[in-house]
Amino acid sequence: MTDESARDEIMTATYEALCEHGYTELTTQAIADQTDKSKSLLFYHYDSKDDIISAFFDFLLEHFDERLAASQEVSPVERLAALVDWFLYDPDDDERASFHTAMLELRAQAPYDERFQAHLRRSDDALRAAFEDILRDGLEAGVFRDHDPAETATVLIAALDGARIRQLTMGRDAYLEEVRSGVANVVVADLLVEGESFPERGAVSLEAVDAAAGDDPE
Amino acid sequence: MTDESARDEIMTATYEALCEHGYTELTTQAIADQTDKSKSLLFYHYDSKDDIISAFFDFLLEHFDERLAASQEVSPVERLAALVDWFLYDPDDDERASFHTAMLELRAQAPYDERFQAHLRRSDDALRAAFEDILRDGLEAGVFRDHDPAETATVLIAALDGARIRQLTMGRDAYLEEVRSGVANVVVADLLVEGESFPERGAVSLEAVDAAAGDDPE
Repeated sequence: MTDESARDEIMTATYEALCEHGYTELTTQAIADQTDKSKSLLFYHYDSKDDIISAFFDFLLEHFDERLAASQEVSPVERLAALVDWFLYDPDDDERASFHTAMLELRAQAPYDERFQAHLRRSDDALRAAFEDILRDGLEAGVFRDHDPAETATVLIAALDGARIRQLTMGRDAYLEEVRSGVANVVVADLLVEGESFPERGAVSLEAVDAAAGDDPE
Repeated sequence: MTDESARDEIMTATYEALCEHGYTELTTQAIADQTDKSKSLLFYHYDSKDDIISAFFDFLLEHFDERLAASQEVSPVERLAALVDWFLYDPDDDERASFHTAMLELRAQAPYDERFQAHLRRSDDALRAAFEDILRDGLEAGVFRDHDPAETATVLIAALDGARIRQLTMGRDAYLEEVRSGVANVVVADLLVEGESFPERGAVSLEAVDAAAGDDPE
């Protein structure tokens, strides 16, 4: 087994263990249990649980970048909708809810952990770049009105991240739908030039775009 | 000592203990240490740590309502600025950063705790009502353009809460300033009728409004 495939197996196991146990209760044993490896073999690849989590942040970022690269195939307005709906996941999707619950626990430890903060800043850089690219492409394509993409990206990311956390912590029915239409009407509507419209919730998904790009060698 | 003053003392001690220890490390002993009471006397008033936290949620809500009531003295645009800046606290304010760090840890446990979720829904109701009141008053006063106050409040709260959490977890310099000007330019600018302007960051504070109202028996 190569180091690369061992790494992928451990990262997938980390994802599964986080979904199952949350972050606070996460142990290296729980991660090992999701693989065919022993706990001691895990420590051949990583020094500690924190080391695994650190690698896991990188893994998530690569995964995000791959999905985004695939989404280049569709229009800027559709890419924006896909990114918004990726954030405002379907609350009935238990796996994503469990995963984001674990990530929230992990993030709640970041104020005490400079290493986590550095990872979260890198994720923020990637997210901002993703939104700004879409907004700039839309400006160039003439589908968005003149605006400051950096400023709009900052507000969108804060609102979508806040909404995701509020959903997890309040468990309010229909909350993510309200935020989706709020974002569409309060922020996105002012961006769109006449004749353009923002796709309905779920009409474009990063997953679907991903799959479509996979079918098409272009 | 009356039950009321005992309660206030324990709630203030809970606030101080949360600022000092965070939520994960919070013990009833740490709360008792901030009072002149023994831990066993604490249990005369409350059944458990969770029971204290539950009462603490109510205490925060009352405190928030009192501050808001005081802020009725100033214009809707100033009240909106005060509320935005109360959310986007000064990141150099170590006490507020410590408190919000503890609250983030506590909120990260809410997905596992239906009682916490119920409290957070009540806080959400209060926050929404506060923003919606301001937005409606501004519509009536003719300082805001026609809009849907519920929708705008939802987006503002998500963005401000998301920004606060992102600041705590990323520790990025100038991030809250960027969100402040983003919210002012992307959301608030479209609300204001011509001739109205949004106060600079920190120009109006709930604390100042509070103090001014205290000076004035009107």
